[in-house]
Amino acid sequence: MQIIKTIKEMQSLSRRLRVEGKTIGFAPTMGALHEGHLSLVRRSKEENDITVVSIFVNPAQFGPNEDFQKYPRSAEDDLQKLSTLHADAVFMPDNNEMYPEGFSTSINIGAIGEILCGVSRPGHFNGVATIVARLFNTVMPDRAYFGRKDFQQTAVIKKLVRELNFDTDIIVCPTVREPDGLAMSSRNAYLNMEERKSSLILYMALKLGEELILSRGMHDASTVKKEMATLIKTEPLVDIDYIDIVNPRNLDPVQKIMLPAAICLAVKIGNTRLIDNIIVEKS
Amino acid sequence: MQIIKTIKEMQSLSRRLRVEGKTIGFAPTMGALHEGHLSLVRRSKEENDITVVSIFVNPAQFGPNEDFQKYPRSAEDDLQKLSTLHADAVFMPDNNEMYPEGFSTSINIGAIGEILCGVSRPGHFNGVATIVARLFNTVMPDRAYFGRKDFQQTAVIKKLVRELNFDTDIIVCPTVREPDGLAMSSRNAYLNMEERKSSLILYMALKLGEELILSRGMHDASTVKKEMATLIKTEPLVDIDYIDIVNPRNLDPVQKIMLPAAICLAVKIGNTRLIDNIIVEKS
Repeated sequence: MQIIKTIKEMQSLSRRLRVEGKTIGFAPTMGALHEGHLSLVRRSKEENDITVVSIFVNPAQFGPNEDFQKYPRSAEDDLQKLSTLHADAVFMPDNNEMYPEGFSTSINIGAIGEILCGVSRPGHFNGVATIVARLFNTVMPDRAYFGRKDFQQTAVIKKLVRELNFDTDIIVCPTVREPDGLAMSSRNAYLNMEERKSSLILYMALKLGEELILSRGMHDASTVKKEMATLIKTEPLVDIDYIDIVNPRNLDPVQKIMLPAAICLAVKIGNTRLIDNIIVEKS
Repeated sequence: MQIIKTIKEMQSLSRRLRVEGKTIGFAPTMGALHEGHLSLVRRSKEENDITVVSIFVNPAQFGPNEDFQKYPRSAEDDLQKLSTLHADAVFMPDNNEMYPEGFSTSINIGAIGEILCGVSRPGHFNGVATIVARLFNTVMPDRAYFGRKDFQQTAVIKKLVRELNFDTDIIVCPTVREPDGLAMSSRNAYLNMEERKSSLILYMALKLGEELILSRGMHDASTVKKEMATLIKTEPLVDIDYIDIVNPRNLDPVQKIMLPAAICLAVKIGNTRLIDNIIVEKS
């Protein structure tokens, strides 16, 4: 497994692979790899000749009061896991490589980055769009793999690819969950035992929402959201940031629920912000 | 010569060429082709296996009170000229192909787009950066060719390529001038006979600036600019937008002139905005 630190080296590897007619699959990550990330790598291995993983904690997608400093970093562990899966290359630039002095270019993705998580994380999705565009230009993937857990992110990246004309297919992979239902996230490591227990309410609320729509035929989004909120509020450690039901294609909020619909939520548990979602489809 | 109207077709051609190991040279234009554009095509033909030219008048780089509507369009003539030069492909998308409904992504290039021409054309260079990024992702060129006449544009695009990690070399080609010194520009067609005559003062002022620096050893930028302004003001039809002397690498304005230095100017003659520049180098 090749470890690559510079943009130039990564580009010349990718350029050579493409001339050889090899397909490149790419999973961009911020490290602290869990089974969710590893599922992306496995899927990429199945579908491409070469699989590249990037590990870079991107400061531009963290707000000034967010957890950039304490975000979990575990390079050695990560590389061990990727090597076990036979990833072909890991692109691991440092901060100076990605943000040299005077760096000033940014991509603005528009309104889709200002709703849902964008409300409490202003600038976050522009930071994501900018780094993903740069990583795509560096790795030149045929296919790039993202987890559905970050549902708004996948919508932002699909829009980025469509509107900036990247020649890359975006593959969205299912959310991987702990046995008790909590969506895997590097940020789960922040939770103490009490908080971890209370976090189960997220998935329970999403399943309740799905149940209300599919089995009880509820169509009014406000009612579904209200029932979900009532359930979540039984957990005193959990503060709701938002619960929203949106059109999964463009993230437009819906009043009258039509399928498929995405129920998205974000909460704070102590200092930890967690998100999750479920796509409700015709059964 | 292949004429290509859609992004998908252009991408699949470029993808195939790259797999075949062919190098692609690219000259993005807004059409109304003159000898300046043609010099880019000739240079690309010399340096690459395949030369692609794009023709697209990009609305996003025109301000609300600018000349988007009346910008000269001469597709048939343009194609004739490109065919004579044996360009391999012309990418000519229409507006719907480039800006479908709901389009919202933009690239912000930072302060370098807000000085010089950016002062009287706010948003112009972000519009340029965005379309060029999209064209690069569509054409996937090894080398892209731009004229030095649009000097700030070349600096913006070099920054774009560096900061978004495009794997494309930017080749800046010399300004092509009319026999009397006027820099070629599609907008020269707007000038009536009187205005055309008065436009000679641009190049004369630049040559005066160069002379003051090289032969008379002037180092103070304000003095050089003042002498140039005095000369230009002898032409009553010409209104100065700006005269600036900058570091050609980063466009930072200079007080004490060091070589190389770029003298850049913009004027209005009637309703026509013209720009020109000269790079003063050690002789």
